[in-house]
Amino acid sequence: MSTDAASPLLVVSAHAGDFVWRAAGAIALAAERGDRAKVVCLSYGERGESAKAWRAGKGLEEIKELRRGEAEAAAAELGAEIEFLDAGDYPLRETPELVDRLVRVYREFEPAVVLTHTLTDPYNGDHPAAARMAMQARVLAQAIGYDAPGEPLGAPPVFFFEPHQPEMCDFTPDMLLDITPVFERKRKAMECLPAQVHMWEYYTELAKRRGVQLKRNAGPNLGLAHETMAEAYVRVYPQTTGVLA
Amino acid sequence: MSTDAASPLLVVSAHAGDFVWRAAGAIALAAERGDRAKVVCLSYGERGESAKAWRAGKGLEEIKELRRGEAEAAAAELGAEIEFLDAGDYPLRETPELVDRLVRVYREFEPAVVLTHTLTDPYNGDHPAAARMAMQARVLAQAIGYDAPGEPLGAPPVFFFEPHQPEMCDFTPDMLLDITPVFERKRKAMECLPAQVHMWEYYTELAKRRGVQLKRNAGPNLGLAHETMAEAYVRVYPQTTGVLA
Amino acid sequence: MSTDAASPLLVVSAHAGDFVWRAAGAIALAAERGDRAKVVCLSYGERGESAKAWRAGKGLEEIKELRRGEAEAAAAELGAEIEFLDAGDYPLRETPELVDRLVRVYREFEPAVVLTHTLTDPYNGDHPAAARMAMQARVLAQAIGYDAPGEPLGAPPVFFFEPHQPEMCDFTPDMLLDITPVFERKRKAMECLPAQVHMWEYYTELAKRRGVQLKRNAGPNLGLAHETMAEAYVRVYPQTTGVLA
Amino acid sequence: MSTDAASPLLVVSAHAGDFVWRAAGAIALAAERGDRAKVVCLSYGERGESAKAWRAGKGLEEIKELRRGEAEAAAAELGAEIEFLDAGDYPLRETPELVDRLVRVYREFEPAVVLTHTLTDPYNGDHPAAARMAMQARVLAQAIGYDAPGEPLGAPPVFFFEPHQPEMCDFTPDMLLDITPVFERKRKAMECLPAQVHMWEYYTELAKRRGVQLKRNAGPNLGLAHETMAEAYVRVYPQTTGVLA
Amino acid sequence: MSTDAASPLLVVSAHAGDFVWRAAGAIALAAERGDRAKVVCLSYGERGESAKAWRAGKGLEEIKELRRGEAEAAAAELGAEIEFLDAGDYPLRETPELVDRLVRVYREFEPAVVLTHTLTDPYNGDHPAAARMAMQARVLAQAIGYDAPGEPLGAPPVFFFEPHQPEMCDFTPDMLLDITPVFERKRKAMECLPAQVHMWEYYTELAKRRGVQLKRNAGPNLGLAHETMAEAYVRVYPQTTGVLA
Amino acid sequence: MSTDAASPLLVVSAHAGDFVWRAAGAIALAAERGDRAKVVCLSYGERGESAKAWRAGKGLEEIKELRRGEAEAAAAELGAEIEFLDAGDYPLRETPELVDRLVRVYREFEPAVVLTHTLTDPYNGDHPAAARMAMQARVLAQAIGYDAPGEPLGAPPVFFFEPHQPEMCDFTPDMLLDITPVFERKRKAMECLPAQVHMWEYYTELAKRRGVQLKRNAGPNLGLAHETMAEAYVRVYPQTTGVLA
Repeated sequence: MSTDAASPLLVVSAHAGDFVWRAAGAIALAAERGDRAKVVCLSYGERGESAKAWRAGKGLEEIKELRRGEAEAAAAELGAEIEFLDAGDYPLRETPELVDRLVRVYREFEPAVVLTHTLTDPYNGDHPAAARMAMQARVLAQAIGYDAPGEPLGAPPVFFFEPHQPEMCDFTPDMLLDITPVFERKRKAMECLPAQVHMWEYYTELAKRRGVQLKRNAGPNLGLAHETMAEAYVRVYPQTTGVLA
Repeated sequence: MSTDAASPLLVVSAHAGDFVWRAAGAIALAAERGDRAKVVCLSYGERGESAKAWRAGKGLEEIKELRRGEAEAAAAELGAEIEFLDAGDYPLRETPELVDRLVRVYREFEPAVVLTHTLTDPYNGDHPAAARMAMQARVLAQAIGYDAPGEPLGAPPVFFFEPHQPEMCDFTPDMLLDITPVFERKRKAMECLPAQVHMWEYYTELAKRRGVQLKRNAGPNLGLAHETMAEAYVRVYPQTTGVLA
Repeated sequence: MSTDAASPLLVVSAHAGDFVWRAAGAIALAAERGDRAKVVCLSYGERGESAKAWRAGKGLEEIKELRRGEAEAAAAELGAEIEFLDAGDYPLRETPELVDRLVRVYREFEPAVVLTHTLTDPYNGDHPAAARMAMQARVLAQAIGYDAPGEPLGAPPVFFFEPHQPEMCDFTPDMLLDITPVFERKRKAMECLPAQVHMWEYYTELAKRRGVQLKRNAGPNLGLAHETMAEAYVRVYPQTTGVLA
Repeated sequence: MSTDAASPLLVVSAHAGDFVWRAAGAIALAAERGDRAKVVCLSYGERGESAKAWRAGKGLEEIKELRRGEAEAAAAELGAEIEFLDAGDYPLRETPELVDRLVRVYREFEPAVVLTHTLTDPYNGDHPAAARMAMQARVLAQAIGYDAPGEPLGAPPVFFFEPHQPEMCDFTPDMLLDITPVFERKRKAMECLPAQVHMWEYYTELAKRRGVQLKRNAGPNLGLAHETMAEAYVRVYPQTTGVLA
Repeated sequence: MSTDAASPLLVVSAHAGDFVWRAAGAIALAAERGDRAKVVCLSYGERGESAKAWRAGKGLEEIKELRRGEAEAAAAELGAEIEFLDAGDYPLRETPELVDRLVRVYREFEPAVVLTHTLTDPYNGDHPAAARMAMQARVLAQAIGYDAPGEPLGAPPVFFFEPHQPEMCDFTPDMLLDITPVFERKRKAMECLPAQVHMWEYYTELAKRRGVQLKRNAGPNLGLAHETMAEAYVRVYPQTTGVLA
Repeated sequence: MSTDAASPLLVVSAHAGDFVWRAAGAIALAAERGDRAKVVCLSYGERGESAKAWRAGKGLEEIKELRRGEAEAAAAELGAEIEFLDAGDYPLRETPELVDRLVRVYREFEPAVVLTHTLTDPYNGDHPAAARMAMQARVLAQAIGYDAPGEPLGAPPVFFFEPHQPEMCDFTPDMLLDITPVFERKRKAMECLPAQVHMWEYYTELAKRRGVQLKRNAGPNLGLAHETMAEAYVRVYPQTTGVLA
């Protein structure tokens, strides 16, 4: 019911790296299908997620540049556009102006699907802040009376991607996405982020684990790949469908 | 990922009428697609859901016969097979024997999709009892070591259909099924149950309400029918998919 | 324990129309009992809930005037006072100043009962914002040290009225209010909002549905009207009582 | 809406002492209003709640007699009838026969209000077992087709009374009952249970604590007694009412 | 795993009195062990928790001075340092500046354990505001890139102390702290707050109640004091340990 | 408060393999500390968890023998005693007799700590059945009036070990146990179960993942091993303690 030929995918990410670990598979799948995929990074993660660079004595602007370059490389690997709003992190502040910028992104990009962070994350306040703004802006963009260019937005489904400590973030996956066909691209995108080399393995193993669960939930009769790789998501709004499956 | 050409649909219903109010749309859609649809009624609802007949002075066997006839007519209207296990209601007792009979149904029918009651219902203990047995039997049927004829079952997704007082049953719909194309058949199936004439209107109105919600969640751009009719469901296991939508 | 002779009812509504669909029955009942009833609209809903007027090419001030007139007519139909704080919508911003204005309303009006939106609503961020401010202001108004005219407020119970998609807003009704005696007034109040004519039927049907549930929960022995109409509410604070019933 | 002149109160208690600690105030209030009040003890608590007697070397029958005598004295103090089903405790077994006996109690007594244990209690499995049976029997008694003497039951509201460790039993009070006028009777009833003398003080203090909360929730303007005593309850089904308060 | 020899304890309190009622036992235990204990009061509670002084006609500055003196005396009794940020109460406003001040406290004090309010409290909005800021600042202080003096903070566990109406604040204790050895000091600290004399008894009784629960959960074999006194806490992050116990 | 010198550890496992994947680290740690550790297997998992043997054409008794041998080898590797109740699986039936056998185990073994399955598992009904019986028997064993040899049990804490699909089983870890010192023994115990070779890697990776989380929650300052291995647990009853940490 919402998988049209042209299904632009919008990813709203608090920091420059989040979309790689958490949603690269979905992005690469969209790109391979020929859909536009766009990542909006609200910040570069320059303060909260760049410990290695700070320890190496780099300065703020240098770190932002570094992170921007890495994220652009990862996005390119996945076939996605990327835009940086440079709103600052740690803390990422919720402001009407930033929400308004997101409204304009929605109106311009007209996403058919939206991915963002969970609304709970006791380890990182920027993540829920990004999610609240992504969801608020989506609702505002739907209103014809909201003063921004473009047509009122439809009702694109929203999915939360997987946080680093899922159980602590009330993340109970209700959707397991088979990313086997594009996993190599996800791996390469991860390798664009050399400061977090320990994460490459961590998220490769996570993809295997979610893949095992996908196979368990899909049943043994579907002829899935021996080593199925998956990403987990939580659906926010009810699914609308013409067939139960 | 689980919408194969042949997708048998199994409905496990505590009483003879439940499948009509709660899942007739899904059943009719399956039948129209050419899939087998089968309803298993654990009881006739002879004690708990036949007040009018009791007040009219009918006897137990007579009431069971009456309910059976109505349910068969409704199933026929929808294009579904129907089987009665006659396990008694009010209370419907959970027994190993009844669970075993359900295992055999699963093994024989090999459903691709399963529908049943919610696990909570403070107004009717038979409904959760049916759901517990339907889910327990599904798990047992998956084990090659379980001693029953047939092949081990795959992992068909399970959906809870809508109870009479949804909020009291922890029923938070996460799937809205468009039943507009088959609503007339659902209406006719409801009309096979003349003792509950007030329910015809009640569940017609519910289908409208769920339809409004479906349109609200699908967005204005999909060209849905002006009066979309829908049924609401809750997905029990994570969805497995190759595309987020 | 809190149903004194004089029980002023305060309704805090995000937009100009909410109180009609969601609480008109409670308001009309209060007015018929001779209690004061007052609606405070934080905004006119000029941007988010006036799509028809925007599509007709009307301007912002014109739309606000239009919405104000409709809401005044509906309030008059119900026998309620109404005040507009004109704080803007989509988004309705939470500010200390707006909360302070609400504190002054509480101190002046001295409500015995308060109605407002749910704290969760993924379809409309203004609704929870209004609820948070209504609840925050109520607590502040209780403190003698808060610098505003009037006496410290008592502890009026708060009830959430029913949102448009209840299950998605964690709205599990624990109170069903019999509005049969005043339903005609509610219907007339709804008809004061001609831009949303499809809502008249929708909320008439909802009142029937909640009425069926009321009868189901009250039991068959109470001699309730054949077609009982009801509104659903959620109680926020524990009920204090001298009798269990 | 359900506080008729004659409102029989039924208390379903797993063991012989529970009704005293948890619901004596509600019972005494009913009796003082002139309503019938009846306690059904499913067991004497002879194994699980009679440690002192076992340590004193008493035998099973002797302990049952002892507990029965104490409970009868407490019930008399409160003005309640009492019946013992002697179904055994630790464990209290859920059986169709025991549920059937409860159905017959409902049909005979026709309660307007029902009190029982919470459905969760990780410290005592008998308590949830009693609650499940009390709720199941209430539903069965409503069905005209259930084979037991008497008329079908209406829909009496059910309240859970307070367990010993409320937070561990998901007990979030939504009703605070003012028992100040009858607290002395509750105290005397407690003193009929000499083996648990430490509980007298514990439950007196609990009544004070719940009284403080009642005053906090009722507000300062109601002229409540300086030392208000209260019992806490959880309402199971939605309240039906003609007035929000 | 986190009970080193030197374990500084930090308490973040919305108002000047909260730490006494809710955490004085933990503070006194820390001090007796020789650990530093520090209380940070975000406000004096001058508006929201000083009703008696306002009724006596005192002015704002006078009340702040009064509250400061009482809190200092209580802290001294417990052996704790105390700092007042004087950010104002009713409402306590969440600002980046106040969070930044807390970050600096964390960086300077390097707590091994943090205590604060619950994230939910429908009776007092300042409490959750304080908790949100305490948790946000703790995360920010962990980032090397956050611009404040000192070393990045470790990951001190956070515990919520007990609110006044625990069930309404989602406070389900998962930790019961034996404060018997220091209860006299807690009592004396409470007596430093003469305006709330009714609270002395209330929180003494609460300590007894929590002590009874502690004994119930610890089991009869541990030789605990006849009258064990306890405080209840909720652990926020997973416990890390080398031994299950 | 409950980590005495002698702390016998009891593990109640539905099938013969569960204790290895889910709790082998805790068992090995106990054995290394010199505490007794005992595993009670309610069944061999002969029907539900022995697919490979069934496909190889083995018979029921042969499979039970095979599973018994594997489990004995694994227990020996870990330094634990093991007992098989041979109650049958798929389904594991809850009976008073089986609960009684567990009571006798508790009374004889006098555990200081108990490990068992989660109470929810939609993939395997035997797991919650085992947990319910383990918890019920623990409560019964505490009662002096329960007719079984031995002294009444104290109140040993209970922990749920990690199920195969944690999020679907409401498993939110609140305790991360460092098993680095004994991981090699866990690995060897896993290798005693050759039919499930794919699980060796799966649970090795899980231990790494939980180890990363342990380090994240313990903080960077504790000098933990580079590759910390961990098991996750959920605490059922409140922790009783003399120190917050």
